[in-house]
Amino acid sequence: MGESNVSQILSREIRLKQRPVGVPKEGDFELVTVPLREPREGEVLVQNIFMSVDPYMRGRMSERESYIPPFPLGKALEGGCVGHVVRSVGGRFREGDLVLSMLGWREYYLSDGTGLIGIDPSLAPIQTYLGTLGMPGLTAYVGLLDLGQPQDGDTVFVSAASGAVGAIVCQIAKIKGCRVVGSAGSDAKVTWLLEEAGVDAAFNYKKVGDLSAEVAKHCEGVDIYFDNVGGPHLVAALDQMKPCGRVVLCGMISQYNITRPPRGPGNLILAIIKRLTLRGFIVTDHLHRQQDFLSDMSRWIAEGRIAWKETIVEGIGSAPRAFLGLFSGDNVGKMLVKLGPGARE
Amino acid sequence: MGESNVSQILSREIRLKQRPVGVPKEGDFELVTVPLREPREGEVLVQNIFMSVDPYMRGRMSERESYIPPFPLGKALEGGCVGHVVRSVGGRFREGDLVLSMLGWREYYLSDGTGLIGIDPSLAPIQTYLGTLGMPGLTAYVGLLDLGQPQDGDTVFVSAASGAVGAIVCQIAKIKGCRVVGSAGSDAKVTWLLEEAGVDAAFNYKKVGDLSAEVAKHCEGVDIYFDNVGGPHLVAALDQMKPCGRVVLCGMISQYNITRPPRGPGNLILAIIKRLTLRGFIVTDHLHRQQDFLSDMSRWIAEGRIAWKETIVEGIGSAPRAFLGLFSGDNVGKMLVKLGPGARE
Repeated sequence: MGESNVSQILSREIRLKQRPVGVPKEGDFELVTVPLREPREGEVLVQNIFMSVDPYMRGRMSERESYIPPFPLGKALEGGCVGHVVRSVGGRFREGDLVLSMLGWREYYLSDGTGLIGIDPSLAPIQTYLGTLGMPGLTAYVGLLDLGQPQDGDTVFVSAASGAVGAIVCQIAKIKGCRVVGSAGSDAKVTWLLEEAGVDAAFNYKKVGDLSAEVAKHCEGVDIYFDNVGGPHLVAALDQMKPCGRVVLCGMISQYNITRPPRGPGNLILAIIKRLTLRGFIVTDHLHRQQDFLSDMSRWIAEGRIAWKETIVEGIGSAPRAFLGLFSGDNVGKMLVKLGPGARE
Repeated sequence: MGESNVSQILSREIRLKQRPVGVPKEGDFELVTVPLREPREGEVLVQNIFMSVDPYMRGRMSERESYIPPFPLGKALEGGCVGHVVRSVGGRFREGDLVLSMLGWREYYLSDGTGLIGIDPSLAPIQTYLGTLGMPGLTAYVGLLDLGQPQDGDTVFVSAASGAVGAIVCQIAKIKGCRVVGSAGSDAKVTWLLEEAGVDAAFNYKKVGDLSAEVAKHCEGVDIYFDNVGGPHLVAALDQMKPCGRVVLCGMISQYNITRPPRGPGNLILAIIKRLTLRGFIVTDHLHRQQDFLSDMSRWIAEGRIAWKETIVEGIGSAPRAFLGLFSGDNVGKMLVKLGPGARE
């Protein structure tokens, strides 16, 4: 460690080159190689193995101040990743330890350990900590259980139901005794929802003319709508909500790339007539539920009650493409980028 | 009582003649005189003294099933009223008793006492039981306190702030230590809000170009928005909400007379970014709070902490015009129709 004959570490990283306008394109990003110094006392050098791309990152690519600051231009992006410690100089992690951090979009990083979380690879494949056992899983857990407050026998409608969050919402709702109806954007996703995730009904919204009528066909009223998309899905759900229903506002991916103000739900008056509660949330406000979540979710996984899909793209250079794919629905389930050992570029 | 020499009682009532399309007009209503029989054993004959017209009644004039059934055509409308018992045949109310009921829009009615509530005229003028001490007051009380959950120092923004509900919201919020900003539709209403209701700031929205900028001018962020109107006010409030703010959806009078779907709030995504809670409610779900409300409100009135305004129209024949006036903002404060003894037609 720190010896002069150790070769210079070169790490490739993805930077935000310019702020996307509308749908992001590959030219908004750039791949840059940077040299890293040796780790000092108390530091570790981590090589990332998997990084996550998530829809919420689109918000941080715009200038507008939000609940987290915008990504700066000309610097590596940030996001969830799982890596292994390749060098350690007396820090709390040892070589070979697996760690979760927010320092994705790069192949290597140095850290004094701040913000790094050790993970247990015996529970599930390590990339699961970026999905079902990670932020998307926690999002599903607190959104459905704490905000949606499902009761046995409730009907739960989920949009983007086969996505990293939606698929877990569907299955926790089933565990809680709900009837679950999912909307997804391809026949393959619908098949997966019905055959693997165990939902009661699912439909391909791209083949549906009247979304409200389609929801009505599958639900005799909706107690909880878990909204990942906004737009026409939210309108349809409001139409079909039962009195005193709960709308969990988790994401509005249909609006992340728009350049002019969208139409809002013209039927929002139904929130009064039906006494609905609509609650928006950000998972990072709910980290106090992390231990409950990990305990429940690892048990459910061990019991074989949770299925999930991953779409894995290889190599740091493919990360922008993987991210863009989120908005065209290329992924089934969690979209991941494999880096480091074993990645094929 | 019941003697054959008692003259026939004739009562005039307002019926819904046809369902309004768009803005209601006087021709949608008709004034009809009906004979009433004598009260029988256990019944009372009540003469109404004041009746209420309220914006929510517009919803019941349309065919669409809602939280309460539509008004039937060709029958007297229903609504809150205060009257006095003019004949009683052994029922629980005596001649001269003052009673609150939902049998407004008529001069007299017979009742076996079901749904009648005796009122205490020593607390406040009897018509106050249709406003500040009645349904609008309870609406303000549960909407602000139970749904909005104001904390000392919160900023509360209220639309239709000088109305029967809004004015009470403003003043309860002041009692609870909040900073209160109101929007109203005339300079006179704004003056009343500032000078009588004691709000911290108020503006005439009809003179404002950019509603969002106007709200921003008066509020360094909004903790609670009490929405009586929907439309551009809701958009402006969403723009200015603080993180974790509460939006109480009480009414959307801007939409009650529209004939095609309105634009919804195009910035509803802010509900996620700011983790907002939007809750619609109907006061009749909260009648368990009636005793707390009456206790608090009568004390506040006795302490001189609550001001209110009334706009009083005279005579049953003027009731449709009074109702229509709600939508053009003719009223300041509670709109009432005076019937019976002392009414000038």
